[in-house]
Amino acid sequence: MITRTEQASARKRAAEMLKRAGIVARQEELERIEVADFGLGELDESGVQILTLVDTDEIAAKVLVLFPHQTEPEHRHPPLGDYLGKEETIRCQWGELYLYVPGAPTPEPVASPPAHRKNTYTVWHEHILHPGEQLTFPPNTPHWFQGGPEGAVVWTFSTKAVDIEDIFTDPDIRRKTVVVDG
Amino acid sequence: MITRTEQASARKRAAEMLKRAGIVARQEELERIEVADFGLGELDESGVQILTLVDTDEIAAKVLVLFPHQTEPEHRHPPLGDYLGKEETIRCQWGELYLYVPGAPTPEPVASPPAHRKNTYTVWHEHILHPGEQLTFPPNTPHWFQGGPEGAVVWTFSTKAVDIEDIFTDPDIRRKTVVVDG
Repeated sequence: MITRTEQASARKRAAEMLKRAGIVARQEELERIEVADFGLGELDESGVQILTLVDTDEIAAKVLVLFPHQTEPEHRHPPLGDYLGKEETIRCQWGELYLYVPGAPTPEPVASPPAHRKNTYTVWHEHILHPGEQLTFPPNTPHWFQGGPEGAVVWTFSTKAVDIEDIFTDPDIRRKTVVVDG
Repeated sequence: MITRTEQASARKRAAEMLKRAGIVARQEELERIEVADFGLGELDESGVQILTLVDTDEIAAKVLVLFPHQTEPEHRHPPLGDYLGKEETIRCQWGELYLYVPGAPTPEPVASPPAHRKNTYTVWHEHILHPGEQLTFPPNTPHWFQGGPEGAVVWTFSTKAVDIEDIFTDPDIRRKTVVVDG
């Protein structure tokens, strides 16, 4: 869980990074940036800030803000009934993103996930995305990523997003963020 | 048709507008910006420049550049077999876009399509999009749009794009641009 103060502070920091990155958004969009701690209460280590621009029954376009070295933990977008699951393209707009997917493990990966959770990271094929670089992967692909030393602002273009159904490798994770007074 | 010189010039102009608008793209993406004249040979009046960032079997994310008062003619994205047709969200990044869709005709619309083609414009419900503003419409919706006095840079986020199958109201239009030496 996070406190309202932490949520407001992360939103403000994310909005500043979005502006610096050239992302154009209305004030009411910035005010509903989702601050996700994945239920771990370690936002600066495991978390992401999400600006949702498009979210229909068919597609989603969102911008993710990663603070320096902040990690979005390993997860996949599973099939749901007739829906094959979310196909996703991640494209870097600003900063540097370390993205990991299935494939030959990269011998000396640049990113280190939070040390006490390292056993919940199972895919280690590294892609380093600089501004303008992107990767598309099919539904149900396990993946995780981390912001570089200055953080990262990245687009995610995808088929329908059903975030609450995402499956995380770490059993401690709860996708829905609980925000408490404070 | 357009000449290679016109194509190169429009690409360069579009790339400059994209940069000013904060769009981040690689050089090889900018070099394949599509310059579409819709077969009319009146690019500054009827045309659009298209930077394709994502184009999979499921979704597309593109950035459209409209020069000042340049018009993308009225068209719709029809159903194709099992596919319902392209659902589209148009979002303004820079400049001003005048967008027309079905609905009560706006009494004094801001945009004027090319005068000699005005009879091929049938929908007149106006939305004026400023940076950060957007409109989503379902497949098969007739629509057309025009850049404002300084032009416009706009995102289009959609389900699968099959541009060549778009249906234009103007029977003179050929979607595939022919580029000739010169």
